[in-house]
Amino acid sequence: ADVKKIAVIAGDGIGPEVVAEAIKVMKKTEDVFGYRFEFEHGLFGGIAIDEKGTPLPEDTLAICKKADAVLLGAVGGPKWDNNPKELRPETGLLGIRKALGLFSNIRPANVFDCLKEASTLKPEVLEGTDLIVVRELTGGIYFGEKFRREGANGEEAVDTCVYNVTEVERIVRQAFEIARTRRKKLASVDKANVLETSRLWRETVNRIAPDYPDVELEHVLVDNCAMQLLRRPSSFDVIVTENMFGDILSDEAAMLTGSIGMLSSASLGEGAFGLYEPVHGSAPDIAGQGIANPIATILSVALMYRLTFGYHDAAEAIERAVKEVLDAGHRTGDIAVDKSKALGTTAMGELIVGAI
Amino acid sequence: ADVKKIAVIAGDGIGPEVVAEAIKVMKKTEDVFGYRFEFEHGLFGGIAIDEKGTPLPEDTLAICKKADAVLLGAVGGPKWDNNPKELRPETGLLGIRKALGLFSNIRPANVFDCLKEASTLKPEVLEGTDLIVVRELTGGIYFGEKFRREGANGEEAVDTCVYNVTEVERIVRQAFEIARTRRKKLASVDKANVLETSRLWRETVNRIAPDYPDVELEHVLVDNCAMQLLRRPSSFDVIVTENMFGDILSDEAAMLTGSIGMLSSASLGEGAFGLYEPVHGSAPDIAGQGIANPIATILSVALMYRLTFGYHDAAEAIERAVKEVLDAGHRTGDIAVDKSKALGTTAMGELIVGAI
Ligand SMILES: CC(C)[C@H](C(=O)O)[C@@H](O)C(=O)O
Ligand SMILES: CC(C)[C@H](C(=O)O)[C@@H](O)C(=O)O
Repeated sequence: ADVKKIAVIAGDGIGPEVVAEAIKVMKKTEDVFGYRFEFEHGLFGGIAIDEKGTPLPEDTLAICKKADAVLLGAVGGPKWDNNPKELRPETGLLGIRKALGLFSNIRPANVFDCLKEASTLKPEVLEGTDLIVVRELTGGIYFGEKFRREGANGEEAVDTCVYNVTEVERIVRQAFEIARTRRKKLASVDKANVLETSRLWRETVNRIAPDYPDVELEHVLVDNCAMQLLRRPSSFDVIVTENMFGDILSDEAAMLTGSIGMLSSASLGEGAFGLYEPVHGSAPDIAGQGIANPIATILSVALMYRLTFGYHDAAEAIERAVKEVLDAGHRTGDIAVDKSKALGTTAMGELIVGAI
Repeated sequence: ADVKKIAVIAGDGIGPEVVAEAIKVMKKTEDVFGYRFEFEHGLFGGIAIDEKGTPLPEDTLAICKKADAVLLGAVGGPKWDNNPKELRPETGLLGIRKALGLFSNIRPANVFDCLKEASTLKPEVLEGTDLIVVRELTGGIYFGEKFRREGANGEEAVDTCVYNVTEVERIVRQAFEIARTRRKKLASVDKANVLETSRLWRETVNRIAPDYPDVELEHVLVDNCAMQLLRRPSSFDVIVTENMFGDILSDEAAMLTGSIGMLSSASLGEGAFGLYEPVHGSAPDIAGQGIANPIATILSVALMYRLTFGYHDAAEAIERAVKEVLDAGHRTGDIAVDKSKALGTTAMGELIVGAI
């Protein structure tokens, strides 16, 4: 097979530890399925601030641009929390999304059998929950003009939320397409009773909906969606929404599954290129101890195989291996009932590699 | 006692039905405690659109301005959902908040013993949950400039989120004061890693926090808060946040209690004046059938007595009466396990009146 270039930006905290296991998994799929990967590492986030004076160094961006896909660990930590904006890890995250044109964030929220009990929701409510939040990622209030000014009542801060029809249309079409491959239900979330951007959003959704007559569409106000996710999570299939609402709702959805340590995500642009990362953060409190759960990052590789490379056989093998290892009762500390029997990061990674 | 003027804006759907029971309760407290109320009714919301051509008629606003407190039922319904903005019930709601200077929305989210099972959360997670969301109500993206324009990529919509230090300071001080009367914990929610308004918010909170050394303060990012509400709801005491985040989080918090049909709210300004309303909506599907649950509206009266009038004896009597009636097993359809034994709106109202 032709060689796929993977940019690896392990980042901060537990990032390097979990990414190392994901790379072992990728190498195993080279052996088993004959795929070929070339890894190039770049500094990103807090470590890049420390070593290069910026969270997103030029050469890291260059590595990503040359690559076919990016594997990201996690960024951030208390060390950089009080830095000025240009020297914060999050600024690197927003910068890389924009620079790579990753306008779509795909966040599956599904329940792992072995973690059903970890959810704070009742099992009968959670039963059958399997949804995807499609979040717009390069527009809205995240990227609009921001500034301070003196007003009549003292200092004022301003954020601007902007969306154009093109931005809305491309993400909504992508969500409709994803819904088509699943249970064919799309919930478009907005605040059209208050926001002008939401009214443009809803008009656009309604305009293109006739192109997807096989998909059942509902409009849900964001406040109501925050409630319905709790009340009837299993009734959602695909949820599409703008950047800020997506940030909030995708985290709510992830948490209600109880599986947050296991969830993967993809950030996509126009083509097949994508950035893949676990949903969980850099967990500075356990960094360097070799106890982090690598499964979310390993499953992000499976997502990469499916969405960027079309390597469905290897994706399935990874997912099956994870299931097998969990079914056999192996757990890292975060998901173990009996913490004394918990495996470390490497042990878990190697078990999964062995099961592929 | 001196006569208190109450503006009654019953609104749409089940609004008039539940408000009628709340007024009976107020009248009963006149008899029992010697308080005196004078009620003046005004049209508001959909019904005002139908009868006066605007959701917030001048004379309704005048009635509210002359009053000591406002009792609101609910507004909205499918009939007006596709109206242009000026002719929508929500526009009246935003208008009345602004016109009356109601910059603070207080939303208690607590669990009723008899409704513990109604929550989708596990009872052991919910145990002890008793929080208040203090939402800024007249600023932020709700009230900033909104417009459309032609951009390079087609039509564009813009919403502006603006906060000045004065607006932030008054709501945050109020939240600190409320926390003082409770478990002395305040969570300030923002998105300071992305938004300029959130950075101003957080700076302001940190600047005034030393005035409340007895209150334990934590800053929580909005996405994390959406998660923590699910994971550890009982750890929150008072949550203070800006308008849009408050809209989402207060609904999430309400829903997780399982008690949404029972929750009351207050919208306050500088003085004692306040607007009181149930958290639930106008429920057009059951309007006019005499089956709506009046308890949230009745408990909103208790909140009015406490926050606007300082009538703590009568407030307590109302709350005790509600508890007594529920403990005796009486239920409206929405909260009944055995629907065949459910009481109607009037029957429930009269039982509560009788128990005062
Ligand atoms: C760190 C932060 C800027 C980021 C976001 O809000 O997009 C994070 O919460 C996420 O969801 O990836
Ligand atoms: C109807 C709508 C404008 C309103 C809001 O968003 O403020 C409602 O959701 C609320 O919370 O009172």
